[in-house]
Amino acid sequence: MDYIIIVGMIAAFLSTVSSLPQVIKTIKLKETKDISFWMWAFLAVGIFLWLVYGLLKTDLPIILANGISLFLVSIVLGLKIKYK
Amino acid sequence: MDYIIIVGMIAAFLSTVSSLPQVIKTIKLKETKDISFWMWAFLAVGIFLWLVYGLLKTDLPIILANGISLFLVSIVLGLKIKYK
Repeated sequence: MDYIIIVGMIAAFLSTVSSLPQVIKTIKLKETKDISFWMWAFLAVGIFLWLVYGLLKTDLPIILANGISLFLVSIVLGLKIKYK
Repeated sequence: MDYIIIVGMIAAFLSTVSSLPQVIKTIKLKETKDISFWMWAFLAVGIFLWLVYGLLKTDLPIILANGISLFLVSIVLGLKIKYK
């Protein structure tokens, strides 16, 4: 496999799962004072549009990565609203 | 312009600038207790690799979006380390 593809796949994996430590931390801590609501709101809409873009282009890697991201980002956004 | 491209451009814009409200909030608040270090560490490495991927493919939109993202994400990561 081309090494450029491998770089892209590691990049996609890391940026996709990066929200997971925040999900775990926020569930444990039950505090979101230092977290920006607008960051997670912009991110949720942005990733939702990436998912729409992937669906319109029938591009499976974009659909998969952003589907997982949207799930994780929605949890953090939901917790931010809950523990406001 | 194709409407699919417009969806992709709005998605890229929103996900790129989403860290900006967090940068502003953290500079004002000087507190990062609720923010996950590992989220921003994974994100910084992930976006750095996206930038490398864009440079290897000479893909200007990927270079631009991830260059701006890396700048913003690095600030949040630096503040998280500073106010630990």
